[in-house]
Amino acid sequence: MKLATLNDDTRDGRLVVVSRDLSACAPAPELARNLQRALDDWPLVEPHLRGLYDELNNGKIAGTMDFVPAECRSPLPRAYQWADGSAYVNHVALVRQARGADMPDSFWTDPLMYQGGSDSFLDPHGDIPLGDPDWGCDLEAEIAVVTADVAAGIDARRALDGVRLLMLVNDVSLRGLIPGELAKGFGFFQAKPASAFSPVAVTPDELGEAWRDGKLHGALQSEVNGQLLGRPDAGADMSFDFGQLIAHAARTRSLVAGSIIGSGTVSNRDAEGGPGLPIAEGGLGYSCLAEQRSVEVLRHGAARSPFLRAGDRVRIEMLDAHGLSIFGAIDQRVVAA
Amino acid sequence: MKLATLNDDTRDGRLVVVSRDLSACAPAPELARNLQRALDDWPLVEPHLRGLYDELNNGKIAGTMDFVPAECRSPLPRAYQWADGSAYVNHVALVRQARGADMPDSFWTDPLMYQGGSDSFLDPHGDIPLGDPDWGCDLEAEIAVVTADVAAGIDARRALDGVRLLMLVNDVSLRGLIPGELAKGFGFFQAKPASAFSPVAVTPDELGEAWRDGKLHGALQSEVNGQLLGRPDAGADMSFDFGQLIAHAARTRSLVAGSIIGSGTVSNRDAEGGPGLPIAEGGLGYSCLAEQRSVEVLRHGAARSPFLRAGDRVRIEMLDAHGLSIFGAIDQRVVAA
Repeated sequence: MKLATLNDDTRDGRLVVVSRDLSACAPAPELARNLQRALDDWPLVEPHLRGLYDELNNGKIAGTMDFVPAECRSPLPRAYQWADGSAYVNHVALVRQARGADMPDSFWTDPLMYQGGSDSFLDPHGDIPLGDPDWGCDLEAEIAVVTADVAAGIDARRALDGVRLLMLVNDVSLRGLIPGELAKGFGFFQAKPASAFSPVAVTPDELGEAWRDGKLHGALQSEVNGQLLGRPDAGADMSFDFGQLIAHAARTRSLVAGSIIGSGTVSNRDAEGGPGLPIAEGGLGYSCLAEQRSVEVLRHGAARSPFLRAGDRVRIEMLDAHGLSIFGAIDQRVVAA
Repeated sequence: MKLATLNDDTRDGRLVVVSRDLSACAPAPELARNLQRALDDWPLVEPHLRGLYDELNNGKIAGTMDFVPAECRSPLPRAYQWADGSAYVNHVALVRQARGADMPDSFWTDPLMYQGGSDSFLDPHGDIPLGDPDWGCDLEAEIAVVTADVAAGIDARRALDGVRLLMLVNDVSLRGLIPGELAKGFGFFQAKPASAFSPVAVTPDELGEAWRDGKLHGALQSEVNGQLLGRPDAGADMSFDFGQLIAHAARTRSLVAGSIIGSGTVSNRDAEGGPGLPIAEGGLGYSCLAEQRSVEVLRHGAARSPFLRAGDRVRIEMLDAHGLSIFGAIDQRVVAA
């Protein structure tokens, strides 16, 4: 099943069921007028949404609308929780290596995760406001899941039953603010402005074999100004699956339905275990500019790729085996705030 | 005006207006059935709530109920944002001094703030579930404000206009998990389980002269097992006022209505500028066990006070000039999870 949230000038938007091919949509019933409300009562609501989804795919509903991703808000325009892991440890190791910092071995066994701001997300086709170009604006292409209610202390295997939906994320990061902020010891805050999510959120069953072992398998495409930046496989080199990430988040407290848990920047090693090559040299590229810049430092002694500036465009998408977009594209433009 | 949220078996509870003396309450109108909804449309809703509040204080409403703090949930049982500052820099300096760590001078000019989990808060008179006594459970008594919508980049003076409500907080902390978690560099996560807020949230005008210069003035009383732990003045030694804290949170992104911004653990210096004495020696005491333990280390070479264990009780309250409770008490018991 595929779901999206249209802008209806309310804070939470209007939930619609979207056809599998993303061509059409129909409003969810009133008891699921927005996605948070649907997640609050999912066992009650889900059969209604599934019935609508089947009818929509069979072309049976009168009054369906064209589905226009540019009219969407993030599936949850505001959420009660956004906790982002860093499950592609390769990415962390590489960025640290480039700046000459060691990485503790424990990072391979104990997930990194930060508490992100969740009070307002950017629209999937909305602007990325940037107050100062020196903040070093970067994309981070990731996968995220939306959870059911999760009990504190749950184990990783059972935690996977709590995955209600999957989405793509652009976890916008301000690289220039990160070193100073992390040096203070309390984690990210100003360095992580609002994120954007894909227009469409998808139930796990919809993904078939691409969703297995708690990971989403498939190439996550990131483009900057129409140039492919990366297409790493989100199912490869993920050191912690979503069950482990959810269990980490829920170790000392429960998670409420509608919590969003992110994978961290998707990143693949090359065949020899080292950093992958850029797209221009036949590699799989990267899901953020920081990683590309780190590889440039390691290979050429200095970073060459600039961070994002006003006017730059970012596009993040995943295609299925038939070349069709699964989640719709995140397609944003940086604007001076 | 005073507001509270009763448990009605919904996720957001039922908003009630509470009489000034906390003796009685009456349900808010349906357009403000819960506090988040009221905050979403505050300019529309506020006159209705104020009308009800005036009638309630004048004893004019038929069908008012006794106000029972034990039946309350946190005013926002779940929120879109909980960002906690560390504005009593004295507290930070002391805890660092006790463990032999320097504190950067910038901490006096650049607020520390962490993004907390906001998806579900404990009830004001609810249990504090503790999975493992070795986690080192501690209270942290603080002041918090609930904001209106706040624009990104706002200055500290104008940010104060965004204060809708004030509350007390018990920012439950797991001291045993903090060093390992902060060493990973991404800030608190597992070390900060769910917080609890006072039964009653109060508008700034209600506080009169106690709310001035962006600070709440008055003794914040913390008790552990019926013994007074501290009664520092929340208006003294606060290095950053709430305007500065809100502006810090909103430097690179907007804040949505209903965002909760905390002061950090309230802490006073003694007259000579050093750590204050414990209550037992005639001092103002402390708002968390970690600070008391830090002072014990500095004075006696070792910590003496244990952290909280199953069965321990914590009570946090602030009285007005007439000795009446302003916010009602946070009154919680630690239970083995």
